[in-house]
Amino acid sequence: MHILVTNDDGVMAPGLLALAKAMRELGEVSIVAPEQNWSASGHVKTMHRPLRVKEVLLPDNSRALASDGAPSDCVALALLGLVESQVDLVVSGINPNANIGHDVTYSGTVTAAMEAVITGNIPAIAISLDGPDNHGAPLDFTPASAVAKRIARAVLKRGLPKGVFLNVNVPFLPLDQIKGYRITRQGLRVYRDSLDRRYDPRGRPYYWIGGEAPTAIPEEGTDYGAIASGFVSVTPLQLDLTA
Amino acid sequence: MHILVTNDDGVMAPGLLALAKAMRELGEVSIVAPEQNWSASGHVKTMHRPLRVKEVLLPDNSRALASDGAPSDCVALALLGLVESQVDLVVSGINPNANIGHDVTYSGTVTAAMEAVITGNIPAIAISLDGPDNHGAPLDFTPASAVAKRIARAVLKRGLPKGVFLNVNVPFLPLDQIKGYRITRQGLRVYRDSLDRRYDPRGRPYYWIGGEAPTAIPEEGTDYGAIASGFVSVTPLQLDLTA
Repeated sequence: MHILVTNDDGVMAPGLLALAKAMRELGEVSIVAPEQNWSASGHVKTMHRPLRVKEVLLPDNSRALASDGAPSDCVALALLGLVESQVDLVVSGINPNANIGHDVTYSGTVTAAMEAVITGNIPAIAISLDGPDNHGAPLDFTPASAVAKRIARAVLKRGLPKGVFLNVNVPFLPLDQIKGYRITRQGLRVYRDSLDRRYDPRGRPYYWIGGEAPTAIPEEGTDYGAIASGFVSVTPLQLDLTA
Repeated sequence: MHILVTNDDGVMAPGLLALAKAMRELGEVSIVAPEQNWSASGHVKTMHRPLRVKEVLLPDNSRALASDGAPSDCVALALLGLVESQVDLVVSGINPNANIGHDVTYSGTVTAAMEAVITGNIPAIAISLDGPDNHGAPLDFTPASAVAKRIARAVLKRGLPKGVFLNVNVPFLPLDQIKGYRITRQGLRVYRDSLDRRYDPRGRPYYWIGGEAPTAIPEEGTDYGAIASGFVSVTPLQLDLTA
């Protein structure tokens, strides 16, 4: 089996390395990831400029390709021929924060999985850890890696329905404290954004989209309901938004 | 009534001016749009850098605000307080190309409407013209403007269900040749992307995501089915992607 690994935090993010290591236990791994952070940058198809790709070494000395495109561009590049052998599964992550509710259309982690479905018509998994808002301090991705491996193995064995991909969120708990797995529906995020107007040294305004971190409604049956109760949330998503 | 107008082609695009003129017949109009083109740039929330806003004059000497953020950022900025009076409706467009099928998660036009629902919980309409692939030559937006006005008036009068926004696509026909309106479901795009590898003057590779323009399946009941038959397509969209 040949697994393509990507993320939206950039090729040097520890979550990507942890995911790649877990996927290597299931098959051959290719990595094509953005060279910079693309969090909350949405579903991008870069057509107005060409994309560059360079080979980089990860901290474990394994080889990866880094592109100046978005996560979804990385998946498109790979599946359109940059990666020569056929890809059986795309796994994106491990994002250090949950991608739940309305996050899914913003999320580079999730939109990379969307791109696998659209461009490659192949199974895809987005995997995120509900990590604390710790300003980038190191996180333990070991439990989430074990979860990713288990779910990827199941998807490689059983496949997914056409057009469906999985949005997986893992609670920030030691593996033996995770209560199990829940198949969930997309829940409701509660964003608490506010506009923060400041003035530069020349007196001209600039604006931060600021405010408190988002919360969510921990309703039974939803993505956030599951992780708030200590379960891994597995949400099957599809791309028909018709109301 | 107070209508916020935005787009993804940039504040100086003729489709925005045509839309703003049509909306002024229904109420007060504020314009907050990106200063550059953001086509196929997805649902963005810019949090890693501040946003700048400047006042510009459109070709008809009306005033608009231009931001260096994405279309969805423009809507967030406006609804979080940049535009002081309450907004009753967000209208995004007029995009010179159709936004159908899987286009909706990539489209800056459509994701601006998503943002209105998420940040403002207010009605929103994305409007696109199924224009020819004419490399930017001027298009007649008059029929699409008339359609936008009619639909916006109906939405202002009747509202939309909570969480629902409209994705409108207009066939490229004179107004008297448009056959009517169809409420549709999201159809299936057929992308024909390919990877175009080239070499720069220093012999290093770069990659265009190229290929032929996308087509779509003109199935009865879908967005593309409607415009291919000469009808305006009105697709109600929502943000729960659960399969």
